[in-house]
Amino acid sequence: MKNPPVTIKDIARELNISPSTVSRALKDHPDISKETKKAVSELAAKLNYQPNLIALSLRKSKTNTIGVIIPEIVHFFFSTIISGIEDVAYKAGYNVIISQTNESFLREVSDTNALVNSRVDGILASVSKETVSYDHFKNLIDRGIPLVFFDRVCEELNTSRVIVDDYDGAFQATEHLISIGCKTIVHLEGPKNLDITKNRRDGYLAALKKNNIPIDENLIIHCEQTTFDEGSRQIATLFDKKLTFDGIFANNDMVGIGAMIALRDRGISVPKDVAIVGFSDWEISSLMQPSLSTVSQPGFEMGQKAAQLFIEQSEADEDEFVPRTEVLKTKLIIRKSSMR
Amino acid sequence: MKNPPVTIKDIARELNISPSTVSRALKDHPDISKETKKAVSELAAKLNYQPNLIALSLRKSKTNTIGVIIPEIVHFFFSTIISGIEDVAYKAGYNVIISQTNESFLREVSDTNALVNSRVDGILASVSKETVSYDHFKNLIDRGIPLVFFDRVCEELNTSRVIVDDYDGAFQATEHLISIGCKTIVHLEGPKNLDITKNRRDGYLAALKKNNIPIDENLIIHCEQTTFDEGSRQIATLFDKKLTFDGIFANNDMVGIGAMIALRDRGISVPKDVAIVGFSDWEISSLMQPSLSTVSQPGFEMGQKAAQLFIEQSEADEDEFVPRTEVLKTKLIIRKSSMR
Repeated sequence: MKNPPVTIKDIARELNISPSTVSRALKDHPDISKETKKAVSELAAKLNYQPNLIALSLRKSKTNTIGVIIPEIVHFFFSTIISGIEDVAYKAGYNVIISQTNESFLREVSDTNALVNSRVDGILASVSKETVSYDHFKNLIDRGIPLVFFDRVCEELNTSRVIVDDYDGAFQATEHLISIGCKTIVHLEGPKNLDITKNRRDGYLAALKKNNIPIDENLIIHCEQTTFDEGSRQIATLFDKKLTFDGIFANNDMVGIGAMIALRDRGISVPKDVAIVGFSDWEISSLMQPSLSTVSQPGFEMGQKAAQLFIEQSEADEDEFVPRTEVLKTKLIIRKSSMR
Repeated sequence: MKNPPVTIKDIARELNISPSTVSRALKDHPDISKETKKAVSELAAKLNYQPNLIALSLRKSKTNTIGVIIPEIVHFFFSTIISGIEDVAYKAGYNVIISQTNESFLREVSDTNALVNSRVDGILASVSKETVSYDHFKNLIDRGIPLVFFDRVCEELNTSRVIVDDYDGAFQATEHLISIGCKTIVHLEGPKNLDITKNRRDGYLAALKKNNIPIDENLIIHCEQTTFDEGSRQIATLFDKKLTFDGIFANNDMVGIGAMIALRDRGISVPKDVAIVGFSDWEISSLMQPSLSTVSQPGFEMGQKAAQLFIEQSEADEDEFVPRTEVLKTKLIIRKSSMR
């Protein structure tokens, strides 16, 4: 196996100085002492240090365009994220081009390549439901193209990312249902493979535990689709199984609304018989009758932060850059679907 | 003023043969007779005909990427159009990248340039509400980059386009309201500058005329925004003016729903006191209570056609290509908001 190339960080470690000092020494910066420059220069030669030329050349041919990869444009949450990205990007002189993967891994790979071929300066991405292999994203990092994940992130790659505190949002939603008297709370869970699904379920479980409500696995219903129909269908299944319940915490507003409509069609009163809380605060949720309680995610802010993290990275010296994770708080919005 | 460059069409006209014959003669195609080749070649030399080299060189460096410019991603109609574009594009081996103008002329210009810099093979565009000058689009045509308009088109440029028969959709919606007994029908009109606004108003007016209902300009309300709030606000204004009405035809579902909510808040029954029909068939419209009648536009089909027209153009010989207009039919969907 070939040795990995020597980086500025290796030189810094060896000399017990900061990577930033090494970087400036190599550039003959006036702030750096002659002694340090000499030591850095000698060690760099000894270790056969090579600046990352591909990254440098890519860096220089700036197009001032940011590529955004999202699962589905039709989701209100993602369109608000895009607005947030654009808000920061256009002010900083960047254009934004968007590709939607339609939740397909192959499309995600193809879109990533297309954006690279379009010579974008960096990519902001939210991964598809299907994605379990990340070589297409790793390839960006290897080529020195800044990559920032938002909402649906890849834990195994060391990049900047913006996430929402889904665990806490789910915990608050579930505890709110308990506080209004719900004792048997269904969780309409989200698609597999996504961290947000796991984090929201964990928040739901933690709230039950804290309030000494026994966990019933039959009440945790997997919804692979994030659609109204899926919510309605899953509620029908619960009725077929003759399970009774007095509360629903849905992984997202769409399945929550689907559930609400299924209950309405059966003459079951929301919130009197069954109280419901969704997640995401879609525009439609406040217009339903009854209006749907939900956990609002700061989509616009998430987009702004993602764009800021990209700009931060693209302006930083590559060897000095340290990826950051921003965690945004959610907000419980109590509406008529859970007011008793 | 400089003379415009001589084209294959000029040579064809002069020799009274087809542009396709001229094109093939210049390429020394075996199907073309020696005499014709000689005549074409001599006239081309005499008129100083120059093949469009910029277009040719752009043509050759294909990226297999289509750029799409849309006003707002959050609009359900536009997201279904994008799905239709992608359906055709990905099957034909193209990637799709999207830019949203946010209804801003400056952003539209900037997005167009960014897509050209990203070396897209062609652009499919729906113009912003602000746009009244079209040089940025004309520039694409001059550079030989295929351009197809969809839904909101530019009449003054000779390109392929896909439109919906808005006039007929509006006519049917208004006549439906008349058929259920409405005599005083408000029209919540769309944003200025857009042909669709004019066509839908004309359809509304034609239906009134045909049914001998006098036109009252006070009942035609201009809505610059396409939002729920705008619909609610405009209904409030009608009440302030003490105008009475028993039907509403809204330029789009969002202002229609906004109007419905404003009526609900005032205790006015829909459809009993006021019947409402919108336009576009948003996902939310069927979920409202009462569900909203609307005119459905074939968004997915519109996207498919736009992508097909682009592929047709990109595969055609530039000098032989003749732009086409596809007009798609709408469908009236009668729901509870107009059932008496």
